[in-house]
Formats: sequence, C-alpha cells, structure tokens
Amino acid sequence: MKNLYIIGVGLIGGSFAKAARASFANLRIIGIDSNPEHLKKAEEIGIIDHQGGLNDLSNAEVVFIAIPVDATVKLLPEILDAISDDTLVIDAGSTKESICMVIKNHQRRRNFLAAHPIAGTEFSGPEAANSDLYQGKTNIICEVEATAFKLQEKALDLFSRIGMRIRYMNPKAHDKHIAYVSHLSHISSFMLGKTLMEKEKNERDIFDMAGSGFESTVRLAKSSPEMWTPIFKQNKENILETLEEYIANLTRFKQFMENDEFEQVYQEMTGTNRIGKILNGIQIN
Amino acid sequence: MKNLYIIGVGLIGGSFAKAARASFANLRIIGIDSNPEHLKKAEEIGIIDHQGGLNDLSNAEVVFIAIPVDATVKLLPEILDAISDDTLVIDAGSTKESICMVIKNHQRRRNFLAAHPIAGTEFSGPEAANSDLYQGKTNIICEVEATAFKLQEKALDLFSRIGMRIRYMNPKAHDKHIAYVSHLSHISSFMLGKTLMEKEKNERDIFDMAGSGFESTVRLAKSSPEMWTPIFKQNKENILETLEEYIANLTRFKQFMENDEFEQVYQEMTGTNRIGKILNGIQIN
Repeated sequence: MKNLYIIGVGLIGGSFAKAARASFANLRIIGIDSNPEHLKKAEEIGIIDHQGGLNDLSNAEVVFIAIPVDATVKLLPEILDAISDDTLVIDAGSTKESICMVIKNHQRRRNFLAAHPIAGTEFSGPEAANSDLYQGKTNIICEVEATAFKLQEKALDLFSRIGMRIRYMNPKAHDKHIAYVSHLSHISSFMLGKTLMEKEKNERDIFDMAGSGFESTVRLAKSSPEMWTPIFKQNKENILETLEEYIANLTRFKQFMENDEFEQVYQEMTGTNRIGKILNGIQIN
Repeated sequence: MKNLYIIGVGLIGGSFAKAARASFANLRIIGIDSNPEHLKKAEEIGIIDHQGGLNDLSNAEVVFIAIPVDATVKLLPEILDAISDDTLVIDAGSTKESICMVIKNHQRRRNFLAAHPIAGTEFSGPEAANSDLYQGKTNIICEVEATAFKLQEKALDLFSRIGMRIRYMNPKAHDKHIAYVSHLSHISSFMLGKTLMEKEKNERDIFDMAGSGFESTVRLAKSSPEMWTPIFKQNKENILETLEEYIANLTRFKQFMENDEFEQVYQEMTGTNRIGKILNGIQIN
C-alpha cells in the first residue's frame, strides 16, 4: 500500500492511520474531515501527512471511512463515484445494514468492503488515537462476496498486518448481535450515569464513594453523543428489542426484591456468573 | 499491632491481611472462616499464620470482619462478647445501618469501628487477595464518635499505613449513597449479562463480537452472589429507589427512540457526558 485516505481523523480513523503507518514503509496518509480543527491537529501530531478533499479520491489506493454512520450513509455513494476502478474503500461503522443497503446497486459496489472493527475507547478525536487499538481485536466483515476478489485480498492483508482477526457475518445478523454486545451496554451505562447524577448533587460525595466497579460500569457514559445518536437511529429496531428485554429483567429483579424473594435474587446472579467464563474467552482469544 | 484476627479470609479479608503484614513487622495473623477450604488455602499461601476460632478472640488486639453482611449482623454481638476490653473490632461490610443497629446497645460498642473500604474486584476467595487492594482507596467510617478514642486512633493509624483515605458519614447516608454508586452498578451489570445470555445461545458469537466496552459493563456480573444477596436484602429500600429511577430513565430513553426523538436521545447522552469529569476526579484523587 502506497497511499491511504482517512475520512474522519478521530479515534478510529486516527488509530487506523497510526497502525497502518507502523506496518507499511513509505506510506503517504491523506486526511479528510469536516472538522478543520481535527484535521489540523491530526497533521500536527503526524497522524496524516497532509490534508485532502473528496475530489482527490481518484488518486486513492485505499480509503478508510471512520465518521458517524449517518454521514457514511450519506457520503458513501459520493465516495464511490469519486474513486478509481482499483481503489479499495473500507468503512468502520458500528451498523452495517443501512450502509450496505445504500450502495447495494452502486456501479462500484465491488470496490467497497463493509467492516466493523470491534475496537474503541470512550475517548474521541485525533489525540485519542493509538497505534495498538486494533491489535488482537476482531474485525467483522459483512457481505464479503460483494467485494472484488483482489480488493478482498488487499483488505485482509492490511487487517492482518495491523493484528486483527477476521469474522464474516451478514449485515442483518451483525446489527442484531451488536445491539446486545455493544449498543445496549452504552445505553445502560449512560442511564446509570444519569440516574446517579440526578440524585447526587454534591459531586464530592460521588468522588469519594465510587470505586472501580462503578467506574467500570459508567465508563461508556463518556462516549461521544455525535457518534452514538446515529448508531441508535440506524439500529433502532434491534436496540429497542434489547432495551425491552433489559428493562424486563431489571423489573423482574426489582419485583423479587420487593417481595423479599431473595432466594430468587440469588439465583438470578448465580445464573449470570457464567458470563465470567465468556469474558475470559474474550481475554484469551 | 502485634496480632490481627481476620474473620473471613476471602478477597477483602485476605487483602487486608496481606496489606497489614507488609506494614507491621512481626505481625501474627490468625484466620477464622466457616469455609475450611478457604482457611486451609489462606494458610498455605501465607495470608494467615495459623487458624483460630471465635473462642480465641480474648487474645486479639485487632479483629477485622470481612464476611457477608448477614453473617456480620449475626456474629458481631458474639464477637464483641468474646473480645477483651482493649480489642479493636473493624468490619468491612457494604451496608452500615443494620450492622451499627445490632450492636447499638452492646456493652462493648466502643470497641467497634464500622467501616466500608471502597475496594474490591469481581473475584473472590483467598487466592484473589492482593496486598495493594486498599492503596489509595477510600474508607468510609460510620459513627466514629461511638468508638473509644484510643481505638479510633489505632484504626486510623492502621488504615493510613495501608494507604487508605478516610471519610466520615452516618450509616443512613452511607447506605443511601452507596446504593447509587455501588449496589445499582452491580444489578445493572448482572441484568446486562443475563439479557445477553438469554439471547445469544451461540457463545462463540458473543466472544467474537464483544469488545472492551461490553466487558467493562458486565465485569461486575462475575461478582459473588453469596456476598451480594445479603447486601441487597439489608439495603433493600435504598436499592429499590435507585432501581426505580434507573428503570424510569431507561424507559424514557426507549420512548425517545420509539418516537424517533433522536434530538432528545442526543441530549440525554450529552447531559451525562459530564460523568467523565467526575470519573477523572476518582482517578486523580
């Protein structure tokens, strides 16, 4: 790979740029972003070599899109219009169905690879980028068969060099599963933070009483609303289903407590302890 | 301090023993536990020097109680009956009202210090113990004025040597606040784990799609039901209040999504982002 265009030079795009730079000698990285401050910062700290625009994309070998998913749905057709026949375009959105749908019949559909690297932190912007973000993480690729064979190969080589494992999935299944393992966690965390903040006006008390357990559960409440609102919008139906089940489980737990059925409370927790093994699975894989 | 009796040699008691051993030369540590396996393991790995029983407590200089809170309520009067006039007894329970209540009129009330070290992990048992668990953490002391002055001093010296900061609070306020910053987080996490496990029968898919965000929010679902059920029972009213507010917030969020009020969804998250500053406060303090 000789050149890489990053559209969206925040945490995800910036980390991808850094990882790619560490893996490919003499790589030129060009940044595109609607936020001029981010673009300037990304250039200053060496994430990108220079700034570009959508009209340069005919020179692009690889384009990596890491912008909010509503912006991806809007821009992706234009991006595909602007590239050359040999350009590989990868997106990193947390929803896949709407994105795959919007370019389904685009004449350059085969230049596009729909991906979701399961990696991130609660921070955002170019300064949050780090070159190890993708190391050992899973990348979910959707509709791989719709991408040109040569470009599939190029993408897999790129992901492999930055240390990612690949899983294939259809966009519908992706959006359904990811609602459970990612989107619901974010809402749970945001609402936990909200519940606490409404109650505790004296923040000093929160500081002093909150331990690492609390910190762990509300960590995601620091996440960017600009990024998450469009995700919730695009994956609305799946998320509503998970939220309904989650609220029902909480309500049931509350009822057990109200009725002093603490043997049931105990059973609810014992049954869920098995998640520990699942989580260990995450860590060792 | 020349000798320390640890009642309950699990994560909390074991870590306290290790921290104390690192801070006091020639300290003899005696373990008491209803679980003979834990006791044996704690002796094997050097957390305690030998095993003891409640009938030895007249020799105790300091007794540290780290057992489920229902067991503390039950045993604490007996423990106070068994000690000498100079013994300091400290408990580490996550609820304080029931515990302070049960010995309110005990003739040795002034030998007791009610504490809640805000420290822990999702693991349990003596093998989970580590000597740094309390370093830099907050210890909430309740009804300090009910403890004999000399024993207050002894306890403060001990906590200070193992690196803890002290905050004072009344038991009622403690139980109310801790419901928000600790107990609710645990329920939220358990029910998140449950919701996922009910849905995803193929665990392999969970492994591969779950990232660090999910792991962070469900970490507490690995916690011990033996420890948490009595906490939920003793702090029932406060927890029910937090659960009600949490469920109401989740329901409102769901309604915003159902009605396509994504501007409101955005506002909900923006308003909660401030928790980031509060969490940073935890880290730097």
